Amino acid sequence: MNFKIDNLQYCNWSREIFEINREAKLDAVHVTIVYHEDFDELQNVIKSWDIHFKENQDLIFLGKDFNDIEKAKLENKTAIFFGFQNCSPIEDDIGLIEKVHNQGCRFMQLTYNNQSLLATGCYETNDSGVTNFGKEAIKEMNRVGIVIDMSHSAERSTLDAIHISKKPIAITHANPTFWHAAKRNKSNDLLKTLGDSGGMLGLSLYAHHLKGGTNCTLESFCEMTARTADIIGTKNIGIGSDLCINQPDSIVEWMRNGTWTKAKNYGEGSKDKPGFPKQPDWFVDARGFKNLENGLKKTGFNEEEINGILGNNWYNFYKEIN
Amino acid sequence: MNFKIDNLQYCNWSREIFEINREAKLDAVHVTIVYHEDFDELQNVIKSWDIHFKENQDLIFLGKDFNDIEKAKLENKTAIFFGFQNCSPIEDDIGLIEKVHNQGCRFMQLTYNNQSLLATGCYETNDSGVTNFGKEAIKEMNRVGIVIDMSHSAERSTLDAIHISKKPIAITHANPTFWHAAKRNKSNDLLKTLGDSGGMLGLSLYAHHLKGGTNCTLESFCEMTARTADIIGTKNIGIGSDLCINQPDSIVEWMRNGTWTKAKNYGEGSKDKPGFPKQPDWFVDARGFKNLENGLKKTGFNEEEINGILGNNWYNFYKEIN
Repeated sequence: MNFKIDNLQYCNWSREIFEINREAKLDAVHVTIVYHEDFDELQNVIKSWDIHFKENQDLIFLGKDFNDIEKAKLENKTAIFFGFQNCSPIEDDIGLIEKVHNQGCRFMQLTYNNQSLLATGCYETNDSGVTNFGKEAIKEMNRVGIVIDMSHSAERSTLDAIHISKKPIAITHANPTFWHAAKRNKSNDLLKTLGDSGGMLGLSLYAHHLKGGTNCTLESFCEMTARTADIIGTKNIGIGSDLCINQPDSIVEWMRNGTWTKAKNYGEGSKDKPGFPKQPDWFVDARGFKNLENGLKKTGFNEEEINGILGNNWYNFYKEIN
Repeated sequence: MNFKIDNLQYCNWSREIFEINREAKLDAVHVTIVYHEDFDELQNVIKSWDIHFKENQDLIFLGKDFNDIEKAKLENKTAIFFGFQNCSPIEDDIGLIEKVHNQGCRFMQLTYNNQSLLATGCYETNDSGVTNFGKEAIKEMNRVGIVIDMSHSAERSTLDAIHISKKPIAITHANPTFWHAAKRNKSNDLLKTLGDSGGMLGLSLYAHHLKGGTNCTLESFCEMTARTADIIGTKNIGIGSDLCINQPDSIVEWMRNGTWTKAKNYGEGSKDKPGFPKQPDWFVDARGFKNLENGLKKTGFNEEEINGILGNNWYNFYKEIN
């Protein structure tokens, strides 16, 4: 059985988007449900997802593990896996890790750009690695079954996390710096260590992570995929599109600034271009998976490799970490 | 006018302790009101202080600035200044700094032993200095008037804070490492930089910070004071006793472990001696200020210097930062 998985979306969710994901034949999507929200605020977000699941039960359901990806495939639905892009919901309490797992959380970033209580983000000047609390949190995430996601973390912290975690970790949405030297993208050394440890890289389709931004070509992206596979291994690559469909620009401002500064931080954007960047025309939404399939074929990947990159590799990862 | 100030106590507050502090003629005490509590939990602590102030209005009142130290002196009362030993109450929200200032907070540690969102604590393996959020928080603390307290912070973070802060900072309770090499004590370099910047060191009487622990002699403590004055300047030294009178051992366990680990961390203690250490017999409570006065005299300090160390230096610092 072949699966299609997008392992990172943060859309302004609506029935229309769930339909698009079905049209793209996505069997599973890992959705970001919170960034800077604390545990109480998380509860409200989960309530809003309860409504999504109820109103769109013909399209989606909450995924718990790899079995639900198979179930989704059979039922022509999309399994939704919850993830956090910051560790804010667990506050300073290791006991909350099990609680958020019980509520569906399956991926959690240790940091989002800035320093957290667990590790250092990629926008800090210095990176002190995984903290005392971070080491305990990783142990607990391993125990209950939440994947450590280091997409927005700094390099030393990421290497620490790979080393400390007893299970493979993921970088759900980022690209290699050899192709586009964005702060959020990852070095060859890091990718090699990630691959050697059985970890996964979800390639991002977010314009700020792409060479040429919005004008990035499908050819360039697929060529990058081939070169990345040489480093990390073809089986360790998936897609984590970072699609933010229908989100207003105020959301990206909030992602970057949270409540930690009175000044304005533009993150990957700039004062002139503060908002969400436009998607490349070959990937405006998940239906772009079809273009990726064609592009990867032209680049020389065989069918098995393409099926791996477009979903089976993530499926195997979900199975592995279960 | 001469003042007596103890710039750090965290007692299990009761009328008896307020009476002892009056007997010791303390015009002001900086009291720790929270460690790991978040903003909501802080509100409950403040409510309990409202009751203390009401029930003991003949002994104490809430101090706002240096004028209240003068007022306390005239009225034979003790002005109580609120402080936090961790930045947990401001959570991840810079807007809460002004709110906690409005509620009386005048000192806030950027960290308590572990990494916080603002800086690195002295129990972490690596110290990345003041974070992005930390830089913004220091600016805001300067603006509203909360002293940056780095007693439990790591060295690089402390040097960063001195450098970034536009106002002098404080180490309210610690001793020099040249005398006793505890993790919580401070290096000569750091003390010199602190003194040069107009900052204050509050000497601690907590056994784990003392050479010889509980058996530390008054002579040794006063000799250390003299050598510390050579480094930091006599006017930059005060007392921050770290008295924890009547606290049960469960409290020191909670200070150290908060909710960040399922294992047990013994901090400055050990498995054999997990609880609060016994105070040296010449400083079991604030009435020990009298012994300090005698000891400092014997060590060769003159009256003005002794009055400085026992309170006037802190008073001048409160005045300076106003």
